Amino acid sequence: MSKDNQPEQLLLRRVAIDTYRENVAYMHRECDFYRAEGFQALNKVEITVNGNGIFAVLNVVDDENIVKPNELGLSEQAFEQLGQQESHPVRVAQAEPPASMDAVRRKIRGERLTQDDFYAITEDIVRNRYSKMEMAAFLVSSGQTGLDREEILHLTRAMTQSGDRLDWHESLVVDKHCIGGIPGNRTTMLIVPIVAAHGMVMPKTSSRAITSPAGTADTMEVLCEVNLSPKKLHDVVRRHRACLAWGGTAKLAPADDILISVERPLGIDSQGQMVASILSKKLAAGSTHLLIDIPVGPTAKVRLMREALQLRKLFEYIGDRMGIHLEVIITDGSQPVGRGIGPVLEARDVLQVLQNDPLAPEDLRQKSLRLAGRILEFDPDVRGGYGYAIARDILESGRAWQKMQDLIHAQGEITEPPRVGQLSYEVCAVQDGVVTHIDNYILAKVARLAGAPIDKGAGVDMLKKVGDEVAKGEVLYRVHAEYRADYQFARSLTDQKSGYRIGTADEVSKTYMEF
Amino acid sequence: MSKDNQPEQLLLRRVAIDTYRENVAYMHRECDFYRAEGFQALNKVEITVNGNGIFAVLNVVDDENIVKPNELGLSEQAFEQLGQQESHPVRVAQAEPPASMDAVRRKIRGERLTQDDFYAITEDIVRNRYSKMEMAAFLVSSGQTGLDREEILHLTRAMTQSGDRLDWHESLVVDKHCIGGIPGNRTTMLIVPIVAAHGMVMPKTSSRAITSPAGTADTMEVLCEVNLSPKKLHDVVRRHRACLAWGGTAKLAPADDILISVERPLGIDSQGQMVASILSKKLAAGSTHLLIDIPVGPTAKVRLMREALQLRKLFEYIGDRMGIHLEVIITDGSQPVGRGIGPVLEARDVLQVLQNDPLAPEDLRQKSLRLAGRILEFDPDVRGGYGYAIARDILESGRAWQKMQDLIHAQGEITEPPRVGQLSYEVCAVQDGVVTHIDNYILAKVARLAGAPIDKGAGVDMLKKVGDEVAKGEVLYRVHAEYRADYQFARSLTDQKSGYRIGTADEVSKTYMEF
Repeated sequence: MSKDNQPEQLLLRRVAIDTYRENVAYMHRECDFYRAEGFQALNKVEITVNGNGIFAVLNVVDDENIVKPNELGLSEQAFEQLGQQESHPVRVAQAEPPASMDAVRRKIRGERLTQDDFYAITEDIVRNRYSKMEMAAFLVSSGQTGLDREEILHLTRAMTQSGDRLDWHESLVVDKHCIGGIPGNRTTMLIVPIVAAHGMVMPKTSSRAITSPAGTADTMEVLCEVNLSPKKLHDVVRRHRACLAWGGTAKLAPADDILISVERPLGIDSQGQMVASILSKKLAAGSTHLLIDIPVGPTAKVRLMREALQLRKLFEYIGDRMGIHLEVIITDGSQPVGRGIGPVLEARDVLQVLQNDPLAPEDLRQKSLRLAGRILEFDPDVRGGYGYAIARDILESGRAWQKMQDLIHAQGEITEPPRVGQLSYEVCAVQDGVVTHIDNYILAKVARLAGAPIDKGAGVDMLKKVGDEVAKGEVLYRVHAEYRADYQFARSLTDQKSGYRIGTADEVSKTYMEF
Repeated sequence: MSKDNQPEQLLLRRVAIDTYRENVAYMHRECDFYRAEGFQALNKVEITVNGNGIFAVLNVVDDENIVKPNELGLSEQAFEQLGQQESHPVRVAQAEPPASMDAVRRKIRGERLTQDDFYAITEDIVRNRYSKMEMAAFLVSSGQTGLDREEILHLTRAMTQSGDRLDWHESLVVDKHCIGGIPGNRTTMLIVPIVAAHGMVMPKTSSRAITSPAGTADTMEVLCEVNLSPKKLHDVVRRHRACLAWGGTAKLAPADDILISVERPLGIDSQGQMVASILSKKLAAGSTHLLIDIPVGPTAKVRLMREALQLRKLFEYIGDRMGIHLEVIITDGSQPVGRGIGPVLEARDVLQVLQNDPLAPEDLRQKSLRLAGRILEFDPDVRGGYGYAIARDILESGRAWQKMQDLIHAQGEITEPPRVGQLSYEVCAVQDGVVTHIDNYILAKVARLAGAPIDKGAGVDMLKKVGDEVAKGEVLYRVHAEYRADYQFARSLTDQKSGYRIGTADEVSKTYMEF
């Protein structure tokens, strides 16, 4: 027993287990001072050093190779958060549930929460006081119709303020965001060089894929470094008016990143949370003008035009109140965009468009020009309706490709870019006819099973798109993998369903119009 | 690469980590065949051996002492579930979310679920296909007003059928259940011997405490074995008409046990889930007649009489439809029952009552007699209103104590019963007056912090109850602990608040009447 009547201390140990955004503490069942099992039932402990503490879920260990009875182990993320050396003495106590869980329970009971409640919740989430099940409780209770417009505004504000904010000292800082769900939709890597070549500031930070086969950051990483320090990022933007970087190094709206790690695997995605998530990130990134892309289609995130309009109104309502100039464009989300799905294949599509290659996928080119045109019109000097032509001119003149090369060099070119996965097979048409539907979910899943985005060369290369005529036995798409196990995972899915439907020309559904 | 074109296999390894009702798989970051990080983002993997599989959350490991690159580690519970030897080859695949999560997402959207939906959800839960955050999503979406009466009936039926069912081949099998929240409320250990001495069948299986300082099973374990095999349990009941055992060995309504491991730490407890949870357990245990105790008080689970009445109706509605004879009694929940809180101290109170000790806590004795009396009246031969007098007669004659001794011997007496914790301190009155309130939560928490129920001798011994006069400095209660750290945890709470309020006699609130 310690002399000063303080609870006894255990020696800190780093346990090399990555518990993916959940702090886990490991205590031996025969721990010298604490009753490990007593703690476990309560689910969470607080580990403190000199008054600073972190929360963790407790796992009880029966193997001294993992932790000894006089040690307290922490998973890698938790160890880093505590920020102490191994063998440092730590105290352990039963953790109170985070105070803001009271607000979550009020929300579960159907009550309206205040701005302060949302500040408290995001603060506790950013400090890693929430377990994943507590986050799930918050997300479900505030999902769907759980939040009214004012609450979504409160949540957006709280999430915006949950981390750092960038200030570019410019009156016009543009950004674009697609709500996602369409594989191959790599327009950002075309829009940024076009817009920057025009002279506008577009410091684009993107996420990596979480449940999709590629994010903009994953794809850009095929060509150059994306993991930029905040200083480097500012340098690149100052010199080139733009960047195409991973957003993870800056701590922008960190509450959002943490919530997404629960939202995505649960497959829940309410309008309110989506709007708060997107706008908080953009506001924290210092954007003044924002274009939102909402693809609509039978296998897109938004399936009906009326849902898209509802979502647009919500974006506009929150955007106006948060003081950002925001426009929404509703686009065709009926099939993947471009030909490639997966980082290397998508990068190839982007380069073909930038280099004015006649083989470049026309849908990716057209969509990028339309979106870039709308962003160019944020410039007071661009007359309404002239953006598209300016964008096309910048692309065709090679100025966009030059700007992209500047960005690649500035960020740090990859000398040996990854190549397409060596293991491959083809999925072929089982009958003659016309491609009438391509399922976004299935194609994304095939690419994912094949190893994308972790294996950059893995993915799907589409040779046919909706409206194309095919003969029986003709190749619809090629699947690429780098690992045998992944090859098999993808194959066992495509053996069951290809994601393509073949019928007659009149079954091809009319494209959703952009407006 | 394997010759048969099947995904490659890893060697099974048991990792001695107890992850508390969540399956965790451990894969080395440099795993030979699989991309561990790719799996991790998706949150769940399926591990299969010869077509039989389990689901697990994946943790990525960087330490070969835990798992090697050619191994797949499983936490203790997951290892047991898979039921294979170490080094057995296993396959790993990305797990599909359980099919019934579709129903949960429909519930989140506010839709009504069908009986089949509830069967599918409980089936997936029992097969450990749900992660804790998925269970949280289900609980929150179906909490509060999330379920209507018919859905609660569906849920009760699905949970009842989720495991085994006992059949006692008797027309009258009685049981009682308290919805909980009142420390020291150990009436079951008095009711069972009284009712069994009368000749009724009462095969009582109880839970251990999860978030309270003692359950009936924890307290009975001070006196005898409670961990009975199904055969032993039946033998005891056949010979003695009753038992007082832990319910964990029989697989009764196992979906409930799993859900509780999420519900309790989240602190969410909706009426619908409570009713389904309690009734499914009792129905699976083969009860035909059931008395439900709902304590009401300012620091009880149910705070208002109208809530208690609402809950009673719901119990009656579901009970009638499930074909169980059910009565509800609403009792005084304004303070703990008896003197002791914690297994050893509560067992002492129970024995004092059984042995007709003049020092026995009168409130525990009275409440037990009332409840036992109501159960005795389930006997068609007992005239309405005479149950209490019969119960009192059985207790005062020593027949209840004799029956308890029979049960203790039959279950297996503990030769060296645990004793009260050696570390102790007193919490004293800070002024003269009358005890007007005792906070159930705080007293339970003090006992829990002191080490109960894991340390059987830990807990709180109350010397004063509501209505008692106290002088400044007089002892209100004594705290007992076995471990120094626990002693300190309890002390740091009671230094801040004792849980007692001292005022004047007219401030003592009127007791909630039983009816």
